[in-house]
Amino acid sequence: MSQQMSFKDLMKVLGLGAVAFVLGVEWLNWLTRHLRDSHGPLKEVLFFPSPQVCVEHLFTRRKRFPCACPLPHGVETSFSRLLGHLLSARMSLDLCVFSFSHMELSRAILLLHKQGVVVRVVTDRDYMTITGSQIGTVRKAGIRVRHEMSAAVHMHHKFALVDGRKLITGSLNWTLTAVQSNKENVMVTEELELVRPYQQEFQKLWEASDPANHKPQCTNGQLH
Amino acid sequence: MSQQMSFKDLMKVLGLGAVAFVLGVEWLNWLTRHLRDSHGPLKEVLFFPSPQVCVEHLFTRRKRFPCACPLPHGVETSFSRLLGHLLSARMSLDLCVFSFSHMELSRAILLLHKQGVVVRVVTDRDYMTITGSQIGTVRKAGIRVRHEMSAAVHMHHKFALVDGRKLITGSLNWTLTAVQSNKENVMVTEELELVRPYQQEFQKLWEASDPANHKPQCTNGQLH
Repeated sequence: MSQQMSFKDLMKVLGLGAVAFVLGVEWLNWLTRHLRDSHGPLKEVLFFPSPQVCVEHLFTRRKRFPCACPLPHGVETSFSRLLGHLLSARMSLDLCVFSFSHMELSRAILLLHKQGVVVRVVTDRDYMTITGSQIGTVRKAGIRVRHEMSAAVHMHHKFALVDGRKLITGSLNWTLTAVQSNKENVMVTEELELVRPYQQEFQKLWEASDPANHKPQCTNGQLH
Repeated sequence: MSQQMSFKDLMKVLGLGAVAFVLGVEWLNWLTRHLRDSHGPLKEVLFFPSPQVCVEHLFTRRKRFPCACPLPHGVETSFSRLLGHLLSARMSLDLCVFSFSHMELSRAILLLHKQGVVVRVVTDRDYMTITGSQIGTVRKAGIRVRHEMSAAVHMHHKFALVDGRKLITGSLNWTLTAVQSNKENVMVTEELELVRPYQQEFQKLWEASDPANHKPQCTNGQLH
């Protein structure tokens, strides 16, 4: 009888513990949201170079992924923050980038595309063909890529729009040197007054780079 | 007698007119301030390329400067806005720029220095010596310039802090190609949460680039 009671007590304690845990998590969620909202829309600044750490868990979405690689684990860096913001896309990713050769950023874009996120890329005409460029790879995977049409002009932007509401912009090209060696900055914001002009600029560049708007030019009898 | 009265009336009208004018100007000032404050701190986005227009009036501070140059006058562009923000410095200008060869931006920096504004520049080691670089010119004028110490790293930032409270940042290097040809963006903001990290980054880079902290290295009996 005494054993039956203690079993009941144990169940009660476990039940109450579970309820307390769920309530605690909900309260923490509310607190985080409240604290974030009380400071207005997201504003974050990331500086580079960023130390090399394992970012495997960001791709698998399993926070405790038992990765065996030799890099440090469980460390947050500017690069892991950047990657996390990009991988938070659920609907769309609009990317305007001058130079794109970073393998993990390419992997992130390919993963988003596979998950059904609509990815659009505008890039530079010259830099898209340099050795190591990931533009060919993402294009082959079915991602829509357009490039600056004029050979005399560089498309030098380095910004991305996540779900049309989170702006990621700065000096950082999507290269390994930029991420791991250079002094660079990236700003992440959901401030509407800042996001809106970049949305408009992306749309403008996307339409201006539409090959359908550019007829092949004929000079000296040759097509260009 | 009638003539004397009308002279008095004239003086009254003129006096009242002057008072009304002063009050009107004050009210407009208040309205501008109120409208600006109601939208929060300054947030502005500029896109490039920027068409070439006369910016002489920004240097002379005489709005109606009778400039005889053939460029369009009285037109506001992304470049004139950028120049205006830089020339609004009264106390200090902290500049972190990868490539600096734009003559008018150099002229602006030299003018600020002449006016007693404390100008500090951090730049890239390789790019400071390329043909057309203005780094030598501003250094010769007495402006303090420091550069990235490592040959393996690029100081790729392109940001400026005006009076420590207005941040100008983006993809734009201080070159004629960037201003007049490339697709570029510049953000200008006084949002404290964005300005503060850039202030700290500037101070960090300024101290890290102090030649006093770097002893000359001796390899194979030669000084580097």
